[in-house]
Amino acid sequence: MVLDNKTIVALSTPPGKGAIAIIRISGQNAFRSVIEKIQTKSLIHQPNQIVLGNFHHQDEFIDQVMVGYFQSPNSYTGEDLIEIYCHGSTYIQQRIIQCLIDDGLELAQPGEFTLRAFLNHKMDLAQAEAVSDLIESESKASHQLALNQLKGDFSHSLSELRLQLIEFKSLIELELDFSEEDIEFADRKKIRDLIDNIQNQVKRLIDSFAYGNVIKNGISVAILGRPNVGKSSLLNTLLKESKAIVSDIPGTTRDSIEDLMTYKGYQFRFIDTAGLRKTTDVVESIGIDIALAKAQKASFCLYLFDSLEITAEEIAHDLNDIIQSNAHIFLVESKIDRFLSLDQTLKSKRKVNESDLDKELKEFDRLEASIYIPSTIEKLTDQLVKLIEKKKTNSSVVISNLRHYQCLKLALDSLKQVDLALKNNISGDLLSVDLNQVIHHMSQITGQIDIDGDVLGTIFGKFCIGK
Amino acid sequence: MVLDNKTIVALSTPPGKGAIAIIRISGQNAFRSVIEKIQTKSLIHQPNQIVLGNFHHQDEFIDQVMVGYFQSPNSYTGEDLIEIYCHGSTYIQQRIIQCLIDDGLELAQPGEFTLRAFLNHKMDLAQAEAVSDLIESESKASHQLALNQLKGDFSHSLSELRLQLIEFKSLIELELDFSEEDIEFADRKKIRDLIDNIQNQVKRLIDSFAYGNVIKNGISVAILGRPNVGKSSLLNTLLKESKAIVSDIPGTTRDSIEDLMTYKGYQFRFIDTAGLRKTTDVVESIGIDIALAKAQKASFCLYLFDSLEITAEEIAHDLNDIIQSNAHIFLVESKIDRFLSLDQTLKSKRKVNESDLDKELKEFDRLEASIYIPSTIEKLTDQLVKLIEKKKTNSSVVISNLRHYQCLKLALDSLKQVDLALKNNISGDLLSVDLNQVIHHMSQITGQIDIDGDVLGTIFGKFCIGK
Repeated sequence: MVLDNKTIVALSTPPGKGAIAIIRISGQNAFRSVIEKIQTKSLIHQPNQIVLGNFHHQDEFIDQVMVGYFQSPNSYTGEDLIEIYCHGSTYIQQRIIQCLIDDGLELAQPGEFTLRAFLNHKMDLAQAEAVSDLIESESKASHQLALNQLKGDFSHSLSELRLQLIEFKSLIELELDFSEEDIEFADRKKIRDLIDNIQNQVKRLIDSFAYGNVIKNGISVAILGRPNVGKSSLLNTLLKESKAIVSDIPGTTRDSIEDLMTYKGYQFRFIDTAGLRKTTDVVESIGIDIALAKAQKASFCLYLFDSLEITAEEIAHDLNDIIQSNAHIFLVESKIDRFLSLDQTLKSKRKVNESDLDKELKEFDRLEASIYIPSTIEKLTDQLVKLIEKKKTNSSVVISNLRHYQCLKLALDSLKQVDLALKNNISGDLLSVDLNQVIHHMSQITGQIDIDGDVLGTIFGKFCIGK
Repeated sequence: MVLDNKTIVALSTPPGKGAIAIIRISGQNAFRSVIEKIQTKSLIHQPNQIVLGNFHHQDEFIDQVMVGYFQSPNSYTGEDLIEIYCHGSTYIQQRIIQCLIDDGLELAQPGEFTLRAFLNHKMDLAQAEAVSDLIESESKASHQLALNQLKGDFSHSLSELRLQLIEFKSLIELELDFSEEDIEFADRKKIRDLIDNIQNQVKRLIDSFAYGNVIKNGISVAILGRPNVGKSSLLNTLLKESKAIVSDIPGTTRDSIEDLMTYKGYQFRFIDTAGLRKTTDVVESIGIDIALAKAQKASFCLYLFDSLEITAEEIAHDLNDIIQSNAHIFLVESKIDRFLSLDQTLKSKRKVNESDLDKELKEFDRLEASIYIPSTIEKLTDQLVKLIEKKKTNSSVVISNLRHYQCLKLALDSLKQVDLALKNNISGDLLSVDLNQVIHHMSQITGQIDIDGDVLGTIFGKFCIGK
């Protein structure tokens, strides 16, 4: 893929209204296209300088702006780059971009500024992808993953592996070339150890994805259960705001309502769902289908139940619909504050108790919750954090990108071929093919080889506009 | 109100995620507080320069950032001002601000940067208020109002009026001082004309508020009617997106759903409401109460009806609940596409027709609509735009700020006192008191006199944080 001659423009600050917005322009016409529009005494003759100007388009005065100029190659993209700092009204943001497009600039594709930075060798591909991850990061854990990748920790690990692969290649070539002679260039054990070592490192990176992926995408927690067990109340308590309407009327929640909350540096996405029941209400039953679909995709399911209202058999029946999912399921007894009184009459009316659960549903983790008892909520979130931290590998480098995961899996497959070939004393020529495959897959991660335009399109298509 | 010594910090870009975010710092410690944090080779020794740096807090590396430095008094606030351009993840934005606060900076109050600009005489008060209006502007019309005010059109009108008041003051002082002698310093007619002229100009500004206010706040349009007349469908058509769930089931919409849409440079806020009917559903009936409350506050009400389902009397009954509002009410016959066929059987089944409406409900404007006939939707929005434009005054200066409106009303009251005093030949001393009142009220608009801290608090409290 090669660079085109277009000059691109996009809004680089978050969408919506704010004090200031930034409009970014990159390409060979960046300087000329803007200098005509801002009527300022102090021309932007010096790079990295910010000047004040009035942005005009034909006879229309649009805004008082500040303008910064970064000269090629000393800019983010490596090209001439202009940043316009305007008042952050949505109208002004749109109008300025529209004027520049009317003058022949093109609206940037998502990630196009960073794509240009990659094509101009300002960063490698894994680092470019980290830029997007960094922007998406909403918790300490995901921020750290992305920042390490941007700094090049992952790229560094890969280049170390690459060096080892080259060393390995030279060793087996020697070994195989002279295999019918009696000369031992390399210790057989050393060759074995080396390929084991490389395989282990690749495996460790692959394994780290289980952790990296949930950290990056937020840990989704679906809250399920029959109507009126307190799902919406639990959601509101977890989010510390009144997100979902709570009422005594079964079927109050129809749409799935979700929001993010960070606990101990980890970001959770809690999802409140329609209560599970047989219903003739069309809207509600659509809601129930959505609830079950959410459970399928979640990392955790909190199945809430009211022990006064449901039997262990009924719980087991509900769980049948959820159990196929990969989610880690918790049985959460809700409204337990009711049983705190010294009077044990209410407790004796429970349709389900611990021993029933032990008998019928022992394979599930269990918790108790009441929105009136903060310690139960804390215990619940602590439990989720604990399970996440269990997935954390010892490796300092964690991968969180699906593309990297796929490349590493392919590299590992080829490594296994090499291993097998080595054991079967396959000729060096054939071994070389597999080895080159390994190097090829690894190089795709950092973009050290020519990457297909479609692949780049997919990678940068996930970026936000303006980066 | 005087400036304090604090150094303030805030996020200046819109909240949320984007490619870049800006964190602004203003005050005497701005430079020192940041220079310690960004480990950069090229120190910010030159103002208006942007440099690259790594933002650290203690041992924690937080982000690669760009930093701009604006030296007092040549900055927006008139103080030393630093802007940090960081990756626009919500986590990084929060973390950087948190670190600076840990180091002793204070989180800026809403509008505090602009308040400081005002206190440092970088702009007058009406211009400062225009900054907020400019950021809030979401349509061409409201943008133009705010920009004119920021440029100083309104301040200029006021200072012209002030000059006229001073001229008037000198004239009546002469006139009154020598009123018992036979010398005529000023033509009586000229004095009358002058005060008439000033009063007219103030009145014209006051009148312009009716237009300015709706332009600034968006023109709210409530869509009302019985269930299943097509309210949600109309909303979706007006907004050009599927905002509200549409189904055949009466009572599908419970919450009021609203969104903004700009037509011909004017911003409308369309509000879809729960269908009006007697219901035992608790959630739905809360929705109906909200619907009627929305109608009370709207500029326009579109009362939709299905002529096959409702009689003129029933419409009149529904309107009883809405009619007290100040909203301009339209009766909109919905689903008129059904009557387009040559077969007139369906049309003959209508429970209400034009002549019924002429008889019973002639005081209301009428429209027809079908989401399948774009021309009817266009006619509807054209009609709304036409009514808004009718409110536009001829005055080039339009006020849109409630505080300015109130100051001008007080100034006009005092002007009337002057007029009356003049007619009754009240002594010059007393006239002077009233005249000073007029000048006082006018000066409060631009802040040419000392403004009470509470008033400033109210004005800048409406700003977004970071401006």
